[in-house]
Amino acid sequence: MTRTIVASATREAIIGFDQPFCVIGERINPTGRKKLAAEMVAGNFDTVRADAIAQVEAGATMLDINAGVTAVNPNETEPPLLVETLRIVQELVDVPLCIDSSVSAALEAALAVAKGRPLINSVTGEVEKLEAILPLCKKYDVPVVAISNDETGISEDPDVRFAVAKKIVEHAADYGIKPHDIVVDPLVMPIGAMGTAGQQVFQLLHRLRHELKVNTTCGLSNISFGLPNRHGINAGFIPMVIGAGMTSAIMNPCRPAEMQAVRAANVLNGTDPDCTNWIRTYRDYAPTAAGESAAAPTAAAPASRRRGGRAARRGA
Amino acid sequence: MTRTIVASATREAIIGFDQPFCVIGERINPTGRKKLAAEMVAGNFDTVRADAIAQVEAGATMLDINAGVTAVNPNETEPPLLVETLRIVQELVDVPLCIDSSVSAALEAALAVAKGRPLINSVTGEVEKLEAILPLCKKYDVPVVAISNDETGISEDPDVRFAVAKKIVEHAADYGIKPHDIVVDPLVMPIGAMGTAGQQVFQLLHRLRHELKVNTTCGLSNISFGLPNRHGINAGFIPMVIGAGMTSAIMNPCRPAEMQAVRAANVLNGTDPDCTNWIRTYRDYAPTAAGESAAAPTAAAPASRRRGGRAARRGA
Repeated sequence: MTRTIVASATREAIIGFDQPFCVIGERINPTGRKKLAAEMVAGNFDTVRADAIAQVEAGATMLDINAGVTAVNPNETEPPLLVETLRIVQELVDVPLCIDSSVSAALEAALAVAKGRPLINSVTGEVEKLEAILPLCKKYDVPVVAISNDETGISEDPDVRFAVAKKIVEHAADYGIKPHDIVVDPLVMPIGAMGTAGQQVFQLLHRLRHELKVNTTCGLSNISFGLPNRHGINAGFIPMVIGAGMTSAIMNPCRPAEMQAVRAANVLNGTDPDCTNWIRTYRDYAPTAAGESAAAPTAAAPASRRRGGRAARRGA
Repeated sequence: MTRTIVASATREAIIGFDQPFCVIGERINPTGRKKLAAEMVAGNFDTVRADAIAQVEAGATMLDINAGVTAVNPNETEPPLLVETLRIVQELVDVPLCIDSSVSAALEAALAVAKGRPLINSVTGEVEKLEAILPLCKKYDVPVVAISNDETGISEDPDVRFAVAKKIVEHAADYGIKPHDIVVDPLVMPIGAMGTAGQQVFQLLHRLRHELKVNTTCGLSNISFGLPNRHGINAGFIPMVIGAGMTSAIMNPCRPAEMQAVRAANVLNGTDPDCTNWIRTYRDYAPTAAGESAAAPTAAAPASRRRGGRAARRGA
């Protein structure tokens, strides 16, 4: 049973086949958030702090920390900014963190000050990346997200993406890094652009779990890019990837629809024993307050909790 | 590729592995609806008519028709009432129907007046049922729902439920009925009472699809019986069962959360080509109108529709 251990200074979390789905909060990331980028460059971390607290309150298991504010000279600017952002967040909240950068020097600088056992995000199948990131993971004994692309880019062929993931796992083994410390991102394509994107991911997740025996993650909302009612697609995608074996995702925990889907899938997947978390969260749930139609209750409620409903209602 | 053909007088529908999920509207069923039962006994079919129209408008593929108004003398009362209900509904809407009764004489009477190719709901593994229902299916050349229980009741062991389903398929073959005309209900237990109910069903669906090669259905809302925010559980269960291979469900199509889950799963499962149905349904979707939180948009939108988002955003 594969388990990836991550930890803050005071709190451990497990990403694993037998664990509740690991929600990695994506909000502390200036990519595509110009206002946040400008604030961070100016040394204003108010939004970072607010996002950290809001995501933990919304149920995030971990927080992703990205300080990629600029494409200009990131090797100089990103290491100190990532370190500062990381320090601020790890003082403020106690969930494990995911250190997210494409700049190796920034990852190294952040690892030097990180408390606990953060997750590194990420390595790819590119030789340069493998040689830069894997030694860091070994040195600091931390797990790493492995993204299934390499020098040739992102293949549309899932078999090629699987092969890239396998290559990364094999390279990691050369450094003494175990498969349980590799969290593979099989790469989720927008379903609006590639109609097979869902089926590709489901099949890849099955192979990653059963052949490579690794934990998995993805940038979840990519699936719905370009479509109307994106949260409806995301909320349908979450139970499907969890059912297919995915064990974590980088996503926005402040969206109620998505988090409800995670909690429901945990119940159904057997990782919320006695529905404890579900009942605690929704005990006082009022459908109309959440804007649902207040249609008449369904007729399908079974007569007994012990038996299937439709059949149970049928007399001899 | 297993396909079960059903039809009204004018319209065909296919339940199949490569088809959009078949939503069988459950509302026309007086079980547990005392007011409806009283109306039907009194010859008032206003609610039946309203429910028929509302369910078709909400997107039902088929409608279930049940006239089980009483446990007293159903062999006398149910046949004429089921016939009348069926006649009314098939005059009113053009979707295929599912004739639902535990009274064999009622099924036979309804079959004699049904137009098109209805689905019979249901046979079980009980010898008496097999011998009463399967000849009817053969005589009228109609498909049938096979519920995985027998004289011993409903087993909590999924292997036993699979064995019952297999037995029904084999008995049907003796009558010349093909597996593609059997739609197996593996029986869904309430997850609040049995924590493994979800995993049981997912495994059963896999076996039913790959070993027996049959279509499948269930009384969907049974899964959430007894829990708060049932629609949240149902909406998470739908994508998981679709991902696991279920091809239809008896459910309430008038619940927006559940139907959104069906539509999203169709997109992700590759049975809504070019997301046509999704886009048509949600083109003008306004999240606040549906009561969602109007949180800031996620940062994870990819820079390009052609590439995975997180990786695509990362420069070399």
